[in-house]
Amino acid sequence: MQLSKDLHSEDGWRLRETGYNPERIVASGSNFLVGNGYMGYRGTTEESTCKDFVACIVSDTYDNADGKWRELCNVPNPLYVCASVDGTPVVPENGSILNFEKELDMKGAVFSRSMKWKNAHRELRIQSERFASMSDIHLLVSKYCIHALSDLELSLDIGVDANLWSLNGDHLPNKKIYQFEDMLIVEAFTSERDIPVIVCEGLLETSHDLDGFSLKTSETMITRNGSIFLSRGERLEFSRVAAVYSGNDVENPLEKGICDVRSAREREHQGLKDAHDSSWKKIWSVADIEIEGDHLAQVALRFNLYHNIIATPRHADHLPIGARGLSCQAYQGGAFWDQEVFNLPFFIFTEPEVARKLLVYRYRRLDAARKKARRLGYEGAFYPWISGDTDEELCPSHFFSDVLTGRRIRNHFNDWQIHVSPDIVYAIWQYYSATDDYRFIEKYGAEMVFEVARFLYSHAHFKKTKQRYEIIRVLGPDEYHENIDNSAYTNYFSAFSIRKALEILNMLQEHSPKKLQRLTRKINLSSEEISGWQEMAEMLFLPQPDLESRLIEQFDGYFSLEDTSPEKLSERLKDPNEYWGWPNGVAVETQVIKQADVVQLICMLPELFTPDVQKANYDYYEPRTHHRSSLSPSVHSIVASRLGYKKAAYEQFIDSVTVDLFDVGVHSSGGTFIGGIHTGACGAAWQMAVFGFAGLSVRGREINMDPAMPDHWKKLSFKLVFHGQLIEIELSQRSISAVADERNTERVALFLNGSELGVEPGMKKIATFSTGEESVVGKT
Amino acid sequence: MQLSKDLHSEDGWRLRETGYNPERIVASGSNFLVGNGYMGYRGTTEESTCKDFVACIVSDTYDNADGKWRELCNVPNPLYVCASVDGTPVVPENGSILNFEKELDMKGAVFSRSMKWKNAHRELRIQSERFASMSDIHLLVSKYCIHALSDLELSLDIGVDANLWSLNGDHLPNKKIYQFEDMLIVEAFTSERDIPVIVCEGLLETSHDLDGFSLKTSETMITRNGSIFLSRGERLEFSRVAAVYSGNDVENPLEKGICDVRSAREREHQGLKDAHDSSWKKIWSVADIEIEGDHLAQVALRFNLYHNIIATPRHADHLPIGARGLSCQAYQGGAFWDQEVFNLPFFIFTEPEVARKLLVYRYRRLDAARKKARRLGYEGAFYPWISGDTDEELCPSHFFSDVLTGRRIRNHFNDWQIHVSPDIVYAIWQYYSATDDYRFIEKYGAEMVFEVARFLYSHAHFKKTKQRYEIIRVLGPDEYHENIDNSAYTNYFSAFSIRKALEILNMLQEHSPKKLQRLTRKINLSSEEISGWQEMAEMLFLPQPDLESRLIEQFDGYFSLEDTSPEKLSERLKDPNEYWGWPNGVAVETQVIKQADVVQLICMLPELFTPDVQKANYDYYEPRTHHRSSLSPSVHSIVASRLGYKKAAYEQFIDSVTVDLFDVGVHSSGGTFIGGIHTGACGAAWQMAVFGFAGLSVRGREINMDPAMPDHWKKLSFKLVFHGQLIEIELSQRSISAVADERNTERVALFLNGSELGVEPGMKKIATFSTGEESVVGKT
Repeated sequence: MQLSKDLHSEDGWRLRETGYNPERIVASGSNFLVGNGYMGYRGTTEESTCKDFVACIVSDTYDNADGKWRELCNVPNPLYVCASVDGTPVVPENGSILNFEKELDMKGAVFSRSMKWKNAHRELRIQSERFASMSDIHLLVSKYCIHALSDLELSLDIGVDANLWSLNGDHLPNKKIYQFEDMLIVEAFTSERDIPVIVCEGLLETSHDLDGFSLKTSETMITRNGSIFLSRGERLEFSRVAAVYSGNDVENPLEKGICDVRSAREREHQGLKDAHDSSWKKIWSVADIEIEGDHLAQVALRFNLYHNIIATPRHADHLPIGARGLSCQAYQGGAFWDQEVFNLPFFIFTEPEVARKLLVYRYRRLDAARKKARRLGYEGAFYPWISGDTDEELCPSHFFSDVLTGRRIRNHFNDWQIHVSPDIVYAIWQYYSATDDYRFIEKYGAEMVFEVARFLYSHAHFKKTKQRYEIIRVLGPDEYHENIDNSAYTNYFSAFSIRKALEILNMLQEHSPKKLQRLTRKINLSSEEISGWQEMAEMLFLPQPDLESRLIEQFDGYFSLEDTSPEKLSERLKDPNEYWGWPNGVAVETQVIKQADVVQLICMLPELFTPDVQKANYDYYEPRTHHRSSLSPSVHSIVASRLGYKKAAYEQFIDSVTVDLFDVGVHSSGGTFIGGIHTGACGAAWQMAVFGFAGLSVRGREINMDPAMPDHWKKLSFKLVFHGQLIEIELSQRSISAVADERNTERVALFLNGSELGVEPGMKKIATFSTGEESVVGKT
Repeated sequence: MQLSKDLHSEDGWRLRETGYNPERIVASGSNFLVGNGYMGYRGTTEESTCKDFVACIVSDTYDNADGKWRELCNVPNPLYVCASVDGTPVVPENGSILNFEKELDMKGAVFSRSMKWKNAHRELRIQSERFASMSDIHLLVSKYCIHALSDLELSLDIGVDANLWSLNGDHLPNKKIYQFEDMLIVEAFTSERDIPVIVCEGLLETSHDLDGFSLKTSETMITRNGSIFLSRGERLEFSRVAAVYSGNDVENPLEKGICDVRSAREREHQGLKDAHDSSWKKIWSVADIEIEGDHLAQVALRFNLYHNIIATPRHADHLPIGARGLSCQAYQGGAFWDQEVFNLPFFIFTEPEVARKLLVYRYRRLDAARKKARRLGYEGAFYPWISGDTDEELCPSHFFSDVLTGRRIRNHFNDWQIHVSPDIVYAIWQYYSATDDYRFIEKYGAEMVFEVARFLYSHAHFKKTKQRYEIIRVLGPDEYHENIDNSAYTNYFSAFSIRKALEILNMLQEHSPKKLQRLTRKINLSSEEISGWQEMAEMLFLPQPDLESRLIEQFDGYFSLEDTSPEKLSERLKDPNEYWGWPNGVAVETQVIKQADVVQLICMLPELFTPDVQKANYDYYEPRTHHRSSLSPSVHSIVASRLGYKKAAYEQFIDSVTVDLFDVGVHSSGGTFIGGIHTGACGAAWQMAVFGFAGLSVRGREINMDPAMPDHWKKLSFKLVFHGQLIEIELSQRSISAVADERNTERVALFLNGSELGVEPGMKKIATFSTGEESVVGKT
């Protein structure tokens, strides 16, 4: 089925792009990425080079090459193949490309492409496929085939291309390029700390004998080079493996890489593929969401789940999810608040052990957050706005320029956008609520939550004349308005964080008093501080809904700003690429906002706001929202679902899930490359389906469902892990069924619109909406 | 003696400009202004028109014509004369101007000019003079003379030109222009509130019979028009008077104007002049400062004193001193902090009754300040940044544009530059210290000081983790850095204000408990509030000098900003007219400041800082100061005098007193006219002489002198009024003499470098510096 002009999917799993289109190169390379959370290999062809944005981005390789930007390394490309016919390289420039197709099989996480190439004399077909192994995360495995459609005098270069595309400086300036045994090796060292990064490539199976090939090396490339005659109809095929390691992964990456390639050879391509398949099968068995009645929604949703999965370093608990995942170097491979608020819920409810690792990552960055707080004059933990795996705040003070003046712009995301810290507390609590993982709280969560509470207390000011705490000079999620006071979003989540700190304190006091004692001693937590938190929890100013309009003011004075719309505002632009926000953008003195802010608050803490407040604020803020963050439509979709705005909820869902798929965004802003996969939006896709359309919410130890499925959908089904129990939910327009896995150990307290539908292990329950009737179907 | 290329003064009182130079027209018109605090008439010639920046700016005529800017009216010009010879108007365009001279006699406050005009056939000399009567402030009095240097067939237009130069809109769109009896009248009405403004002109004495002249009227002009034949050598002379009134001055301005002109005729030119002279004589008898040994310093200092006097509405207690006085409409005729900090001390120590009126003016604006505070969410009195005589904050949110983008700039002078309120408290206290005027405190001062304390308390935030009050998001005097916290200047003066509030509270409690009771009832002052002030007085954060460097940080984080110099910074400009400050100017992220800030603090509160601290901060901040406010050099000069930096003190003095005289400033910024007299700098001139070179300070009921006169000065003498006693101080390089007026009623406690030199009424005391010897010379 056709999804857009060049995108197709027949089975809902395989995404196919047809036609060779150089303009699509950035987006297509990202969309057809393969990866495993350790590395991401862009969906480019084997003959592509740095100009085509080829990249294999590897986690945990942070390097600062230009003295300004720390970012992940793009490592040498071990999948490089260049075929030549009669001395002419088989590339688009030298012939016609016909029947070009790329396919991403999301189920198996395999990229493949095929194309016919012909010039006046010769004709051939290239087919190739690759995967970044989910079971052996350091391995890239590929197959390559040339099918002679005419007699061919073929010359081949098969090797590693170390001429790298890099956004900010040469991260691997020192490279050793050599052959070892029959492997091709690039041993590189990062510019800043000289960390070794190795790529070790070896052939697996070949259809023809390539022993006669000779070694060809240059400063930036090493290949096996040789010639072969193929008669018309004949195929040349070979499969390869490459191991990628850095000195941050293992002590001796070179040794490990060589060893991995040797062992891969023993397992052969099929063995590697089977292991990879099996890992993905396990993931999808819980992660997948099925939609019936909307093919686009099905494919696009899976596309987002897939990218959320491959962006996530499930192998480690010291690495973040980058805002562009491992699809490129943009946004420095660092985690924003997106990680907790957008990416994480999917894992909390499908693979809580992965969610836990992401939260442990934040624990491992606690000292960095403490340092940042101290550097800026605060106490406790002020998490970086962009967080890598060093102690740094990756977010620079200046990262783009005023297009009208060329002057750099000082954005205060790094020092004023404090909500990332309470967002982490929110995520910790969400994780705990869904998993009941008390040990996590004891070991990691409590300390983080306490330190965030401490930070917020030290950030707040007490206003004596108003007898309230205030939070001054911040940015909420809406980045068009910096330097604001009492951001509704920030204040509510600060109050939330401090209350949770007190709640956890009581919890530990009751259940693990000794551990609490050790912790309070470790972090020097005094009873005066705790009294301060108690006071702040009660006296922090929380902007209340207006009695008449029911509106919550986004921040002090927001309603006094000029009331206009994004459309009208865009007419004031002198240059289409102008930044709309601080300090001088067209939106600054208006009510036009970049993305969901009060609506984001309502989305995340719906229990605090009555339906009329939710509705009034959605109705007010949505038309004033520019949606210039890929994180914005999803939040609106979820709230719209809850409000019964089915049309809007669906439209915003589609906007959100297709932002990368249909390449809606821009790839560069003020000269800065910002292409790549919007991993936050990918995470949000799951939330729109489950929190929005299925209407899932957690209250204490219960799950509630309040579905609002699009009218044309026949079925929406997904699995949930809750308190260690696995259940499968299937919604139709008329009924809901819940099947509890037979390995479950306890009843799951599932509520439908408030009435209980508890499911015992191995049982299935069905309820119909019209009658409210409930039936137990018995063992599955 | 020549002061500059075209400026001369022989006697130190008369300032003479030679040569006709159209490029000097803006500055020269301002410099040669005559005025009396009610109106200012620019130093233009009688034949000049609106294109030559003719203006007669009248106080208390605030009008908002363009819906954006409220400013004073420029009223119809009643001194217009145009002579024509053979039908050719005698203007520069039509002939040669020879021997052009303008003179300002600062002693008599009389403007005069003379010039020879000739064309191929005819030659004549025009001489004219004028004054704005200091005794009859609604009267402009002038003389005009044509001396025929060849036979002349002369045609004359003598009348009122109502075609007006105006900065922001037509303030007098409705005008009636007519003759009444033999007076020429323009009766106009302000655009916004229809306030009548009248100009009523009449001839006084004439050398020739002008009865045959006929009336000529147009929409914007009314003149007596006629012809006269003058033989070579013959002179035509006439004198005129014009009365100017607005409906804000008297109930029936027209009647009053007519009546004034009639009565002026009876007094004749000489009678009017005598009264005017006598008023000025009285003013100068106390106001003047004599310098021997430095003619430029003498003339320039008097020039500044003169302009400070004529800018000041001594006739009323409900009007401000405009930042450009009455020299033009720029800066809206409104008072800034300049009024209290720069203009006022001169009056406090020479004409305390005028100083009192200026402070009563602030009392009359107390409700406006209360309204502003409430509008911005505070309590008490937040004085406007620009204050006219309405309840408005005259300072608009946008008043200039980014020259690079054309986009308007939002400066936060109106809502963040809060120090004007504590500056008023400082002035109140300075006035009280110098006058002992307890009745003023009772009636006006206490209420203002309490309301400012209340405002500051409501503005401050308490930082629980630091156990201190902080003042967040302000601008200090240095306007390049907006949005700063804990401005040293602002915090110290806030503490000062609150302490003075408590001191006054105690004073009233002791001396006028009933009045205090009435006042606290009137303003609802509670004991809780007072406790709050007490706490804030003790716990407000005051940035302390660093133990090693002795530096006081201008605001939180200032020392972390890029350390560069104004010179280096100017190399970064893309356009020479760029604004350096907020939000995007080149200085914002650097330590380069616009004007004295910490040095201003040290200048005003020297008793709080030890000499090493004063020195360290002067040394540090001065090279980082751009001095882009005319208020900056004077402050540095005073502090330099105290530090013994004699050369710097003198250079900064000269820079400051010649800013207008030598036309150093710019007349327009971002398309906005900002020409005119820098009245703040004029007021500062007196302070540099008396507080700086003479080293005067008041401690309790004592005056201390710690002179640091420039080495080449032979004498510096001035008069002081202190606690109602008049003394004359004369400094030489070797001695000081103090003469107490014989009408004094008590001994003046004068100290020289700490040792007493008390002067009894009518006595003179002399002390020599070298020996410390003291001699009483006896009755003067």
